[in-house]
Formats: sequence, structure tokens, C-alpha cells
Amino acid sequence: MALIVQKYGGTSVADLDRIRAVRDRVVRYVGDGHRVVVVLSAMSGETDRLLHMANSLTELPSPREVDLLLSSGERITVALLAIALGAVDCPAQALTGRQAGIYTDTAHTKARIARIDTARLEAVLGQGKVAVVAGFQGIVEEDGDSRVSTLGRGGSDTTAVALAAALKADVCEIYTDVDGVYTTDPRVEPKARKIARISYDETMELANMGAKVLQVRSVELAKKYGVPVHVRSSFSQEEGTWVVEGDKSMEEVVVSGIAYNRKEAKVTVRGIPDRPGIAAQIFGAIASANIMVDVIVQNVGAGGHANLTFTVEEADLARARQVMEGLRKEMQIATIEVNPDIAKVSIIGLGMQTHTGIASRMFETLYREGINILMISTSEIRVSCVIDRDQTEKAVRALHAVFGLEEPPIEGR
Amino acid sequence: MALIVQKYGGTSVADLDRIRAVRDRVVRYVGDGHRVVVVLSAMSGETDRLLHMANSLTELPSPREVDLLLSSGERITVALLAIALGAVDCPAQALTGRQAGIYTDTAHTKARIARIDTARLEAVLGQGKVAVVAGFQGIVEEDGDSRVSTLGRGGSDTTAVALAAALKADVCEIYTDVDGVYTTDPRVEPKARKIARISYDETMELANMGAKVLQVRSVELAKKYGVPVHVRSSFSQEEGTWVVEGDKSMEEVVVSGIAYNRKEAKVTVRGIPDRPGIAAQIFGAIASANIMVDVIVQNVGAGGHANLTFTVEEADLARARQVMEGLRKEMQIATIEVNPDIAKVSIIGLGMQTHTGIASRMFETLYREGINILMISTSEIRVSCVIDRDQTEKAVRALHAVFGLEEPPIEGR
Repeated sequence: MALIVQKYGGTSVADLDRIRAVRDRVVRYVGDGHRVVVVLSAMSGETDRLLHMANSLTELPSPREVDLLLSSGERITVALLAIALGAVDCPAQALTGRQAGIYTDTAHTKARIARIDTARLEAVLGQGKVAVVAGFQGIVEEDGDSRVSTLGRGGSDTTAVALAAALKADVCEIYTDVDGVYTTDPRVEPKARKIARISYDETMELANMGAKVLQVRSVELAKKYGVPVHVRSSFSQEEGTWVVEGDKSMEEVVVSGIAYNRKEAKVTVRGIPDRPGIAAQIFGAIASANIMVDVIVQNVGAGGHANLTFTVEEADLARARQVMEGLRKEMQIATIEVNPDIAKVSIIGLGMQTHTGIASRMFETLYREGINILMISTSEIRVSCVIDRDQTEKAVRALHAVFGLEEPPIEGR
Repeated sequence: MALIVQKYGGTSVADLDRIRAVRDRVVRYVGDGHRVVVVLSAMSGETDRLLHMANSLTELPSPREVDLLLSSGERITVALLAIALGAVDCPAQALTGRQAGIYTDTAHTKARIARIDTARLEAVLGQGKVAVVAGFQGIVEEDGDSRVSTLGRGGSDTTAVALAAALKADVCEIYTDVDGVYTTDPRVEPKARKIARISYDETMELANMGAKVLQVRSVELAKKYGVPVHVRSSFSQEEGTWVVEGDKSMEEVVVSGIAYNRKEAKVTVRGIPDRPGIAAQIFGAIASANIMVDVIVQNVGAGGHANLTFTVEEADLARARQVMEGLRKEMQIATIEVNPDIAKVSIIGLGMQTHTGIASRMFETLYREGINILMISTSEIRVSCVIDRDQTEKAVRALHAVFGLEEPPIEGR
């Protein structure tokens, strides 16, 4: 008799057979007496296909029109699932982001949810129907105008968690093509193991680092509203990984997982006459262009000139460079260099807060493997190193072994 | 300095190269000082692909969800064209049916436009932008709810003409993959010729009969509001066919064209106890299911039992049969037969109003060719015969020759 939000990713709705499998699972839940809200992504590959078309037309397509373009993918999957459910007499209604009452800010292609008006969703549930909601999209109201917006890559996770929070759902199930959160990417390290329970904070760091199980914003939201998230496979009935508030039993393990991100790129700006406010000016401009910056390193070189290096998503590199070129004259920047061939490798664990020497053990391991560290960044539960991209696998495997992630069964956690 | 509505069909936006060609044409018009509203269809094949998926899930998908599904195709093309125009510094804005203010009735998948609120469109044009509008779709408001609706096959033509009427545009250009309206389908009769000028009425009959140049509703609308329509090819700069008010010069030609429709199907209902109101009851039920009926023949057979035969679109046959089965008991229908293998061949011409013997000449021609006439239907400017589908080509070619359509150049009309 629970209220359950289920989110199915692109591979779980990739074709009609998979959509039928989703239908069958939803029908089982409804048969057990649960009220169900289903959030869907576009069919896998569809968003890339659409983006590729836009980028073939111009390097910098208008974000507003890109959102209109991309929002079509989820309309297709929600309509198909609602049709499939109706065909087996399971009452269902498809809802777009607009119809689900998801209002966002104006940051097209990377919008954030501002508020959710659940009136219509609750009406649909009240009629005993399954609500099938288009993930990844919302609407933005501006100048008496209302347009579709999208939440950025993996935004469907955010839609699902936000709806679970707004509806006070008992659980938010995230169905994907892997069966849970792993100690690292099993494609890189076959000895990686599934984690039964993990804290929001660790998951966020893992997500942030490119372990693409969950979008980091969705975990942030889940933590904020205390939504229990269950990450599991749409291809089996097995339990996956529960993402919940961190608790005592977790503290025994120092490092929970190794993450990596091969989709970052590096921008280096050299020879800026040093004066206060350089960073504010540069990152203000970058932020205005809605580009997320990850690692930042700044230092003052010879002759009182500052050098600044930062990483952005590879997809944003062209735009980031453009922004820097725009500042070049005004800020008297000597050189602007970009490197699209980097990766970031991270170790993550709540235990780091109370254990010492974790970071130096990481640096030592990379040194032993002959891997050059280009940049370093740390948080309370994470240490990240930027390295050359072609050394990613070697780094991940070495760190997975050194921190003992192959060894003890983590099932009991 | 004209206001021009241009509609591009699916083949004209089938891929990125074609979208670039559309962009170039629009840019030329804008360069000449015109204000331009562009209405687009989905990429060719897309609507069929989506419908096929829905029909793979169930024979009778929910029309409301089908509309949500189908409306995605035009969102893609309008976003892409707006992006392409922006990329060459031609200010443009994509608008969905909702944003273009197109309100329809509640007949999902076959909605009719109820009203158009042009405020936003005019604002976009007022800003000097090209308005790129998703064809085929509108919104329907019901019970405080608002949903997307679609206008049925070829609905983008209707969108274009309706917008041209609402905006009082100077011309509505319909770009397609043929270069105008022909005396018959050139694939069936290579001797077919392009018509330079044709009346709304004749075009409507041609369109109705399956000469798929223009959707009949769009011509109806064009006639009602006196919108000059120019049907032309998106692959050339040549003049196409002007569809305008019928005038004197047209009367010289008796038959303007031969149309055919191979997508009809026939339903025959036999042995209904004859009483008043049979037809009203049957066609009331058919209309409630939103099925268009074309030719109807009713007669009373032996023993005071009525037989009724009618044709519907082949795609509606399953639903039409279901409706009839639903009436079977109540109306004491003896048998229900369907025939999906029929076609309709028609001769069309304003001149028929003042010339006699045209119909009998048609019947005689079909008889001479050994073609059996299953049903006959006539209007003031049209005579149609339902025949076996595999004899369509033979009938079209024979009629095209008999009515002299191969001979005189019609260019001068």
C-alpha cells in the first residue's frame, strides 16, 4: 500500500520489448496495491541522436530550441508506456513535464527545478491511475511566456527524486542497466563488487566523479528531503543498492569506491597580470555561460603573472574557450590552452573523515604506476586526481586493489 | 514586403541537408524584406514510425496518448530549423502548437482547429523574427486540463492555411516533393501534366480522392477565407500550381483531373429489418468513433431487409467493424462483411456542372476496360467509382486518355 516512484532509464525503455517489460513490472506493483508514479527517460541513444543533429547545424545551437528538441524523446516513451498499460487494462495517464507541474528556472539545457505543483499528479493518482511522467523536462515561465526546459544529462533521476519528495513517496526506485552501485566501474575492474547500502554523501561523490549510476543533483535532493533511493536493475527482481542517510555501520570501511570521469577537459590560462578579483571575473563569466567548472588550480608565476587551470565537461570546452577568448583583451591574458584528453580518478569514502593518510596513499599508488598527476582536488570524503586520459584504467585498477575493495564481502553493510 | 506562410512537408525536412535547403530559402525571403511564418511537418517516415510502435503495443491505442506521441515529430523539425536559422544569424523562434495559439476541439488524432490566438506569433514577427511553427498539432482545453492534440494526416497543411487566414497573409506556400497539382498521379500515368491554376473546389475533390497534394480541410479553409495557396516544389525555384477562386477561364475544360484512392475499405451490412432511422443509427455510431465515411449505398433487399454498404479509410476498418459488431444485436444485423481490397477512381472538373454525359462516358470507359463498378458516388464537380484495387492503374490511364488530359497544354489556364 505504498506510494512508489519508479524511474526507468534509456536502456530500460530502449525498444517495445523493454517497454513491455516495464509495463509488466508496473502492473505487478499495481496488483500488489501500490500507487505508482513512473518517470521515464528517452529511448537510449535518442537524446544523443537529437543533440548530434543540432550540433551538425551549428557549434552553438540556441539552448531554448535545444530544449524543445530534446524534450521530444521523453514524450515518446511516456506515451508508449501509457498506451501499453492501457492495452492490458491498467489505467494510466501520460504527463509531460508541464502537465506534471514541474517548474524550473530559466537555465535552458541545465535548468533546476524551482517548484512542483502536484495537483494534477495527485488527481491522476486519486483516479486510481498510474501516472507516467516525462523525465528530464519542465517548463519555465518568463515574460508571460511559457516554454519547455530540460534538466541536463541524467535529469530524469532528478525528476523522479523531486516527485518522490513532493509526493512524500515511500521510496524512489531508480531502474537502470546495472544492478546497483559498485565499488568501481566493472568494465574497468572486473573485480568490482555491488554495495548493498551506501550514504547519500558517498553516492554524490561517486556520481559527481562520473560513476553514472545517479545524477548528483538527484542524490542531493534525496538527501535534502530524506527520500530513500533504491538503485536496481530493470532486468531482474534482485535487490540493488539502497542509498540512505549515512550511519554508523558504514564507518568501518575507509574507501567505499573508486570513481573516474573521462569526459572532462582542461583549460589553462597563463600570464594574467596578478590583481585581486581575477578568479571572480573569470568564473563569473564562465558561470554566466552556464558552464559547470570542476577542479580549479590557481598560482602566481614569475613576474607577478597568474596562471589558472580549471576543468569543465568536455562538451562545454568549445564554449568555455569562447568565453575565455572574450575576456582575453580586457584581462590581458597571454595564452589560453585547452586539453581535451584528461580524466579524473577519485577515491570516495565516509571513513576518510576519521582516517589519516588516505590521500598520500593514493598519490603513492599513482606514482608507483608511473602516472603523472596534473591536478589535485579534495573534499571531506573524496580525493581526486586529474591525469592523462589514457591512464584511467590503470589508475582505477591499482586504487581498487590498494584500498582493499576486491576483498571483503560488502553485502553485510 | 509581404507576409508569407510557408509550409514544408516531411520530405522537405527529411534530413539535415534538406533542412539547410529550407533554411536557405527562408533566408532569401527574409533578405527580400518579407515577413515569414514557416510551418513544418515531422521528418518523412517519423509519424509512421511512431504510429507503428503504438500499434505494435495494442490495436486500439488511447487517442490522447497517441497525440502526445505523434506531436514529438514536429517539435524536432521546428527546433532544428530554428537552430539552423540562428546559426546563419537569421533571428528565428520555434513555436509548438500550444505556443502558436492553436486551440482545437477534443477529437484526439483528428482534431479540428477551434480558434487561433495570434498574439504570441505576432509578437515574434514584430521582433523581426521568423516564426517556425510545429504543424499538425494544437492544444485542447478540457476540465481545467490542457493537452496536446493533432489534426490528423496532412494536418500541417491545415495549420499553414489556418495561420495564413488568421494572420491575413498574402500567400500560403505549400512546399512538397512534387512541383504542383497534376491532371493525375504521374507515377500511374506518365503523360500526366502540371496544372498552372485550379479552383479550390476542384482541388478539394482531387485531395479528397487521394491525390495527396493538399489535405482537403486545408483547401476548405483556404476557400472559406480566400487564402491564395501556391503548391510548389521545395527542390526548385519554379512556379507550381496556384489554387484560387474558380473563374471563367477554367470553364473551358470539362475534366481537370483524375484522382484515385487505394486506401479505402468497404463495409457491407446485410439483413437489417427495414425501419426508419437505420442509417442515422449506424452513422451516428460511426461518427462518434471519429471515423470518416466516404461513399454510402443503401437499398432494401428481399423480405423488407435493408443492406448498407459504405467505405472508410483502410486504417479505420478495424474500428469501423468493431462499431458495427457493437450494434449487431440491438439492430438485428444478419451479416457484417468487410473488403479491404478496393479503390476509388474519380474524374473531377468544374465543367461538369454545365456539360452533360460526362458520367456515362466514365462508366462506358470502365466497362470497355473490363472493370467492374462496385459503387458509384457523384457531386457537382466529381464522379467516383469504387472498383477492385488491382484495377486502379488501368482505370486511371484509360480515363486520363478518354478525357483528353494528355493533349492540350494546360499552361495557359
